[in-house]
Amino acid sequence: MSQLSDIIDALKPVSTATITTVLLKLGLRRVWMRGTRPLRPGQPRTVGRAFTLRFIPAREDLATPASWSSPRSTRAAIEEMPPGSVAVADAMGVTDAGIFGDILCARIKQRGVAGLITDGAVRDTAGVLKTGLSVWCGGAAAPPSVASLTFVNWQEPIGCGGVSVYPDDVIVADDDGAVLIPAALVEDVVRVAQEQELMETWIMDEVLKGASLPGLYPPNEDNLKRYKDWASRR
Amino acid sequence: MSQLSDIIDALKPVSTATITTVLLKLGLRRVWMRGTRPLRPGQPRTVGRAFTLRFIPAREDLATPASWSSPRSTRAAIEEMPPGSVAVADAMGVTDAGIFGDILCARIKQRGVAGLITDGAVRDTAGVLKTGLSVWCGGAAAPPSVASLTFVNWQEPIGCGGVSVYPDDVIVADDDGAVLIPAALVEDVVRVAQEQELMETWIMDEVLKGASLPGLYPPNEDNLKRYKDWASRR
Amino acid sequence: MSQLSDIIDALKPVSTATITTVLLKLGLRRVWMRGTRPLRPGQPRTVGRAFTLRFIPAREDLATPASWSSPRSTRAAIEEMPPGSVAVADAMGVTDAGIFGDILCARIKQRGVAGLITDGAVRDTAGVLKTGLSVWCGGAAAPPSVASLTFVNWQEPIGCGGVSVYPDDVIVADDDGAVLIPAALVEDVVRVAQEQELMETWIMDEVLKGASLPGLYPPNEDNLKRYKDWASRR
Amino acid sequence: MSQLSDIIDALKPVSTATITTVLLKLGLRRVWMRGTRPLRPGQPRTVGRAFTLRFIPAREDLATPASWSSPRSTRAAIEEMPPGSVAVADAMGVTDAGIFGDILCARIKQRGVAGLITDGAVRDTAGVLKTGLSVWCGGAAAPPSVASLTFVNWQEPIGCGGVSVYPDDVIVADDDGAVLIPAALVEDVVRVAQEQELMETWIMDEVLKGASLPGLYPPNEDNLKRYKDWASRR
Amino acid sequence: MSQLSDIIDALKPVSTATITTVLLKLGLRRVWMRGTRPLRPGQPRTVGRAFTLRFIPAREDLATPASWSSPRSTRAAIEEMPPGSVAVADAMGVTDAGIFGDILCARIKQRGVAGLITDGAVRDTAGVLKTGLSVWCGGAAAPPSVASLTFVNWQEPIGCGGVSVYPDDVIVADDDGAVLIPAALVEDVVRVAQEQELMETWIMDEVLKGASLPGLYPPNEDNLKRYKDWASRR
Amino acid sequence: MSQLSDIIDALKPVSTATITTVLLKLGLRRVWMRGTRPLRPGQPRTVGRAFTLRFIPAREDLATPASWSSPRSTRAAIEEMPPGSVAVADAMGVTDAGIFGDILCARIKQRGVAGLITDGAVRDTAGVLKTGLSVWCGGAAAPPSVASLTFVNWQEPIGCGGVSVYPDDVIVADDDGAVLIPAALVEDVVRVAQEQELMETWIMDEVLKGASLPGLYPPNEDNLKRYKDWASRR
Repeated sequence: MSQLSDIIDALKPVSTATITTVLLKLGLRRVWMRGTRPLRPGQPRTVGRAFTLRFIPAREDLATPASWSSPRSTRAAIEEMPPGSVAVADAMGVTDAGIFGDILCARIKQRGVAGLITDGAVRDTAGVLKTGLSVWCGGAAAPPSVASLTFVNWQEPIGCGGVSVYPDDVIVADDDGAVLIPAALVEDVVRVAQEQELMETWIMDEVLKGASLPGLYPPNEDNLKRYKDWASRR
Repeated sequence: MSQLSDIIDALKPVSTATITTVLLKLGLRRVWMRGTRPLRPGQPRTVGRAFTLRFIPAREDLATPASWSSPRSTRAAIEEMPPGSVAVADAMGVTDAGIFGDILCARIKQRGVAGLITDGAVRDTAGVLKTGLSVWCGGAAAPPSVASLTFVNWQEPIGCGGVSVYPDDVIVADDDGAVLIPAALVEDVVRVAQEQELMETWIMDEVLKGASLPGLYPPNEDNLKRYKDWASRR
Repeated sequence: MSQLSDIIDALKPVSTATITTVLLKLGLRRVWMRGTRPLRPGQPRTVGRAFTLRFIPAREDLATPASWSSPRSTRAAIEEMPPGSVAVADAMGVTDAGIFGDILCARIKQRGVAGLITDGAVRDTAGVLKTGLSVWCGGAAAPPSVASLTFVNWQEPIGCGGVSVYPDDVIVADDDGAVLIPAALVEDVVRVAQEQELMETWIMDEVLKGASLPGLYPPNEDNLKRYKDWASRR
Repeated sequence: MSQLSDIIDALKPVSTATITTVLLKLGLRRVWMRGTRPLRPGQPRTVGRAFTLRFIPAREDLATPASWSSPRSTRAAIEEMPPGSVAVADAMGVTDAGIFGDILCARIKQRGVAGLITDGAVRDTAGVLKTGLSVWCGGAAAPPSVASLTFVNWQEPIGCGGVSVYPDDVIVADDDGAVLIPAALVEDVVRVAQEQELMETWIMDEVLKGASLPGLYPPNEDNLKRYKDWASRR
Repeated sequence: MSQLSDIIDALKPVSTATITTVLLKLGLRRVWMRGTRPLRPGQPRTVGRAFTLRFIPAREDLATPASWSSPRSTRAAIEEMPPGSVAVADAMGVTDAGIFGDILCARIKQRGVAGLITDGAVRDTAGVLKTGLSVWCGGAAAPPSVASLTFVNWQEPIGCGGVSVYPDDVIVADDDGAVLIPAALVEDVVRVAQEQELMETWIMDEVLKGASLPGLYPPNEDNLKRYKDWASRR
Repeated sequence: MSQLSDIIDALKPVSTATITTVLLKLGLRRVWMRGTRPLRPGQPRTVGRAFTLRFIPAREDLATPASWSSPRSTRAAIEEMPPGSVAVADAMGVTDAGIFGDILCARIKQRGVAGLITDGAVRDTAGVLKTGLSVWCGGAAAPPSVASLTFVNWQEPIGCGGVSVYPDDVIVADDDGAVLIPAALVEDVVRVAQEQELMETWIMDEVLKGASLPGLYPPNEDNLKRYKDWASRR
């Protein structure tokens, strides 16, 4: 299952809620990115390997429109993003400038990138929504990135929303926000998460039939047996 | 009018804006819960007696998935919630873990609970929305409650969004958020609030006819007389 | 172009994102109001001269419902708002009381005011939305303004969302929030902004045709020439 | 006792803790300024009538070193401060620029001003401490005020640390911070506060002799009688 | 070593920095209370079993000076505190009212309580310092607790500074703040912490002799052997 | 004057307040690091070239005591710090873990480093103070860095307290906090700052003689002439 496309197929039906539960059982608590919400509620769940971008605070002698032509610019970074990746931008939680607007998001979409995650903001929200790119961010802000931020580099380890992200870690994002699966743990997580989703489907059915929670969620021995019978019959 | 069903009927058409104005005139300023918004904008106004839940911070030796089977668990608490009550959960304003997800909300809904209010977050937002339970909360977060919180007890006095809530206080929630009416003041509030809603209906009509505000809102003697005539003719 | 109506016509198609970029090039970085979002996403872009309102914190001996009849009240201020203006209220970022509700917003709308901007909250959200007034604010809150704020005066210099606003500065607001154009700079901004919007239209077309970003945005010499050809042929 | 010097004499031995208790009993809860601490712990308690100063956010076209020569400058304001007054500056809670440094504080001290209170910061702390002026503030910051703030006016109603301050209200500041007594209530507060200080002296004596708290603080009937005997014998 | 006095003796020379390192190795990360600092820098390290106090937000109909005579008052709680205990008060992080002033702190000191920890504030700082009670808190504030808080109960599980505290957990506080050792882990922590303090003493000696850090801290095999020789010779 | 030692000599008597004023006149507003205060008030002004350190959030699978032996560890970084440099650590503003304690600070001091600046915290404050290293930080915290942070690298561009810092920029820190002078501007800043310090000395003398501020600070033509006479006679 080590192929990216297989991982993506396996994770597509798994909620970020389930993934964080599985990671917690593995001892990982810092995997959900604070302050990053879907720009369009209900946009499809997005899965892919992280392509990281790093910003630091603006400095008037460095962060100028002229810097947009530099070889270390966000423009150059975008051209390096592989199809299917998820761009994750460390904006240091700064939400009073938009890191990307409609033109950059249109190009990211064109390159086949699966989504954009940032603890910062985007700008020209109406235009960004038109590009169809799935975006998770901390809000909308009119000012350009250079008003508050200086772009530094791509594919470095970053922090985003209180989570450390290394290039090629796997990102999953849905209406609850964005979570990280460390690259080394992806296969374990997929296996356990699929099992858990199945069990929760059964539990939800029971609840909808009127069952009470104690002994059901999590299941006691009897209910575990009933679940396994049900699962084996599927 | 001391029957709960009568109170609910009387409060259903009254906005939280009106209730806070009435309570302010009675000297109560701390009745609106900060940081708790409707999960689905436009969901129906919800009224009921408070059923309280209390969380404290997580501790790795206590807040584990195993704790979900404890007799002091959220599961046990849910089974104690009476139909028509409003569950109010003190999550200490922590919004990086979801106190409840789709399964628990489905069970709460099944029990006939009128709504869920918390200064924390919920998880599996898409699933929670499907249950049809009316929820006011501080956001959505993927991680399970045990990642940040430990459940302690139910039906204790709590703080929620900066407001103290005792079991059986009355909660009203609409698009402006959730407010508390102390149990002892409910009947007074209902009576005055109904009168105020009526007067504001008349004032709004006047405004829509082009009247200017000074002397109208609040009404001077002349306008008060005009209002009373109008009210008596209804 | 110094007529207000001409300025408004010229600014209507210009995004706040573009305006902040133009102002940044003129050396102005503090023009976007933090913590003020559209009450109804997608509401039309709004342009007009600022009519300012100033609140300070509530004091129990001053901020009472009785104060609503004072000649220095919000009611009196509203009657001074000229048609086409944009009301900008300095609520000191306080979002646990609503500065205006449905009745006051209805009157503001009746007076032909173009919109309301505040770093505070509004109340009776459902009613405010019904008035049709375009509102940018920091949220919804049930309590009346007097629960947290005292109204002081109108048409004074104020701060709103970290931006200083003087009467008659020009305000533009869209889905990215609200920005300020100092009165003295409006004509310069309009001229440059229109040119930039045109160029960005051309760049977006190029991106949608598959062009990569370096050398295009911002354009190098070649692309600048191509753009000018295109612009001259329109 | 309406003479300022008498009020000051009467309030000098009264702690801000006692004053806030007295004001609470009168129904005033918003009188203690958040985010303003003594610059030098242990500096003497300061009492005087408020002289207000108002800042709004900086704007690059307005807040320049050149503005320091304007007739509306902080320099002009300082020359208006009466001896014995307490300067109270509304810096909107901005603590990343210092509103005053050593030179301005030296001049304020020279004018006989009793103290400076702000929810902002001061700069050149070492120099300010040398001037001997008693300062309560939100911290120290190197940048000049114009880096973040624009001075607007003096002797207007302001907000400082969440408290509304009108010119001539009375300010008392000690190691617990700064509190406001509305001008109209000063005489009442002085009378009750002196009585309360006396009773608390007696209660503290009792505690130091080993008395337990219930029935003592606040005193029950017996203890009240004992206190009155003690007080009458002084 | 299970006697409290033995534990205290053993923990007195151990820094909170060392204790948190030991607990981290045991998997506990949430043990340091945020927002609680020594009231008097350099006050002696304090150790004892937790006696918990719980506050919720103020409500004008409940939080009155009259409530100070209630059997559920802070006064009654203080009389239950055993000598040698550490009072830990959950003030919900509210720092705009002081939970205790000089009189209550004097009584706490009289009862032989080892210290007071809170994520809230104290009042009458000058008076509290005179009592000699060691206090860790979030600041000083003049207003009485009832201005913002209502006391609920004692010896319940609480949250303080983001840490869950159960009665009889062990608290250690020094200039780095206050940390919790779960009751069940105290003996393990003491044993490991003493060993670690000894090793850090040796490492610090080496650093002061000019040794470089890699291989020393943490020690590689060679340095571990050198340390063990040194330790065995003591 | 391009020798580091000359720059340091020239900057030693210049306050950070003066440096920020000079940089503001050059158009640089983001040079003062928020949230970093002297650990010991009154510690000597510190000047040197920046040696940068970068942390990202902790991840349980990465941030372990074991990581302290990695070649990318803080230990290795410390051994690279040149004498006379100022270590500047980007801790992302996280103040609930201490990046360095007594042992690491002792080694930094041993290497002849001039000071340590961070927007994070230090731990074992008492021990750090004993090392004699000058530290500016956001507070004290008992937990080790790995409880909240993962060290990534040294000598990269970083953000610290909202300021971007590149290796070899010049840092000056005093009781007002820490400021940055971009490497390319150091000589300009030194020259202007020395002139300004001299003028402020003269102005302060005038104030202490009783001069009023308007026309003096900043000086009008007459006063400028008087100052120049005074300066030329020195």
